[in-house]
Amino acid sequence: MTSNLTTLVNHQVRLAARPVGLPKASDWQFTEEAVTGPDDGGLLLQTLALSLDPAMRGWMNDGKSYIPPVGLGEVMRAGGISRVIASRNPAYAVGDLVTGTPGVQEYATLSGDALRRYGVAKIDTRLGTIGQWLNVLGMPGMTAYFGLMDIGKPQPGETVVVSGAAGAVGQTVGQVAKIKGCRVVGIAGGRDKCDFVVRELGFDACIDYKAGPVKDGLREHCPKGVDIYFDNVGGDILDAVLARLARKARIIVCGAISQYNATEGVAGPKNYLSLLVNRARMEGMVVFDYADRYHEAVAEMAGYLKDGRMKSREDVVHGGVAAFPDTLLKLFSGANFGKLVLQVAD
Amino acid sequence: MTSNLTTLVNHQVRLAARPVGLPKASDWQFTEEAVTGPDDGGLLLQTLALSLDPAMRGWMNDGKSYIPPVGLGEVMRAGGISRVIASRNPAYAVGDLVTGTPGVQEYATLSGDALRRYGVAKIDTRLGTIGQWLNVLGMPGMTAYFGLMDIGKPQPGETVVVSGAAGAVGQTVGQVAKIKGCRVVGIAGGRDKCDFVVRELGFDACIDYKAGPVKDGLREHCPKGVDIYFDNVGGDILDAVLARLARKARIIVCGAISQYNATEGVAGPKNYLSLLVNRARMEGMVVFDYADRYHEAVAEMAGYLKDGRMKSREDVVHGGVAAFPDTLLKLFSGANFGKLVLQVAD
Repeated sequence: MTSNLTTLVNHQVRLAARPVGLPKASDWQFTEEAVTGPDDGGLLLQTLALSLDPAMRGWMNDGKSYIPPVGLGEVMRAGGISRVIASRNPAYAVGDLVTGTPGVQEYATLSGDALRRYGVAKIDTRLGTIGQWLNVLGMPGMTAYFGLMDIGKPQPGETVVVSGAAGAVGQTVGQVAKIKGCRVVGIAGGRDKCDFVVRELGFDACIDYKAGPVKDGLREHCPKGVDIYFDNVGGDILDAVLARLARKARIIVCGAISQYNATEGVAGPKNYLSLLVNRARMEGMVVFDYADRYHEAVAEMAGYLKDGRMKSREDVVHGGVAAFPDTLLKLFSGANFGKLVLQVAD
Repeated sequence: MTSNLTTLVNHQVRLAARPVGLPKASDWQFTEEAVTGPDDGGLLLQTLALSLDPAMRGWMNDGKSYIPPVGLGEVMRAGGISRVIASRNPAYAVGDLVTGTPGVQEYATLSGDALRRYGVAKIDTRLGTIGQWLNVLGMPGMTAYFGLMDIGKPQPGETVVVSGAAGAVGQTVGQVAKIKGCRVVGIAGGRDKCDFVVRELGFDACIDYKAGPVKDGLREHCPKGVDIYFDNVGGDILDAVLARLARKARIIVCGAISQYNATEGVAGPKNYLSLLVNRARMEGMVVFDYADRYHEAVAEMAGYLKDGRMKSREDVVHGGVAAFPDTLLKLFSGANFGKLVLQVAD
């Protein structure tokens, strides 16, 4: 098989420049390389589907963060699902499907050491589809589960608000909170997304931030205040929720997509003194800290998928790695509807 | 004795208008009333000393907070130490000293019900002076103790930063943190205050925010980052500390004196996403929640006062209630040095 590999061409998307504001065409470079076979202990992986996430914007910036930035000239970092097409590692067979961080490229040749470093692990498609493995059973689902359960600590009857409610993290936060007995109010952009989270996912209500002031929606739908806020967006919506906190509220700081492309600095939450008045708490989380507990959450959520209590929606874009730059922008305009996935191969 | 009381005149300071920005002369009204004797179960108290605190500025604003605002025309709320000069309550004798909330007035006639409502309690001057009962053993000390211990949960060897370090809350935060085995860095305005907290109170270092960028001082004095930040000031200093957090840091949101007189809205902490990167937490506290545990903290801190491990500094202003409006302003200009106390009678 190794002889055939040399005929494969690997198309790649690399970071050419650090974006100012929204990433633009000149921030990317398209390259192609001949595919090389794996060394002893390694794998050659074909990328099937890539996960497009708001966090990617942060990885493109220079400076200290929870993981190093993508270097200029490097293949853009991306999580995804791949198929093993050549194996020199006895733990993997050709045809196995794996989750990992293949990057925005069609093939990834990984050493045995890189397999560990990038958290490559086999997936079981009896538990969920490839889309679901990038969504509920993947990084967004793990983020939702551990953020809500470990930091939010929801109690039955509490009111949970989640922004980006129709997005990858939001849809799982809301559904897990419902399963745990909470009242759940989503915040999303547009009637379609709001209808979806209420009718399809079973949220109690959803506030359309494009239709009117979020504070009015919060007053209507959270009459006893907000006990838990899972924040994916930051900005004005965070301020509106801060103004509506219940005593001893918990805010999970998961993201701030409204601020990731800000060119004049992040807007700080001017209502943060509500934390004082309400004896409330705001806490950040990074999903990678929970890697050794992913299996717990996967087992629980696969059960919900199976018994129908959990639904998932993916927004799958076809077009291969060349479509990556434009597809990524859907996240920041809010044009995606559900977990954004870039299909690279079948 | 009751007959003599009718000859006493009670000078009072009332809230005449809700201040915009710094309180000004026309926001206050000076009144005098004849003193009336207590009803059955009540007390007549003579105010000896009043506690002047940053929180007072918040009490003057309209709107929902952790306690109702002072009403227009009402005597300004203030904690203080009083002497019982007439008692119709068997639990109190004439001459007893009590802590409570007498307000900015020379005398307070309280019903039995009001005694409970205002948390009136006898003080033991063997444990501390009147000044110390308004400082380390009073509301600021309780705030420092429970905020640090209950929310901060300091571990030996951790780095604790406290702003307003020479102020009432700050001086106790730092000294308790030292006793608990932490490295303590204060932030204060001016060389004198910095020298005081380092030389007299034993802090490891103090950053003079008037002398240069706080971020430079934090880099120098907190090489391993900030594990606990006790925030009394908000604003730019909060942002500087956010940028220097250690992994799993805790920020106690106790106050934001830099923002209390802001007329264009509070400045939100623009570096709040450091909470995410560092898996850190920001939590508000209100000292009144710990009222049933004050005795624990008083016992512990009176021990430290006695064995010399805890020092206290009060900035006592003489001049009676008429001096209240001008004295209060010292807090907001930073002109006070130590716990600000207004002496009303001997």
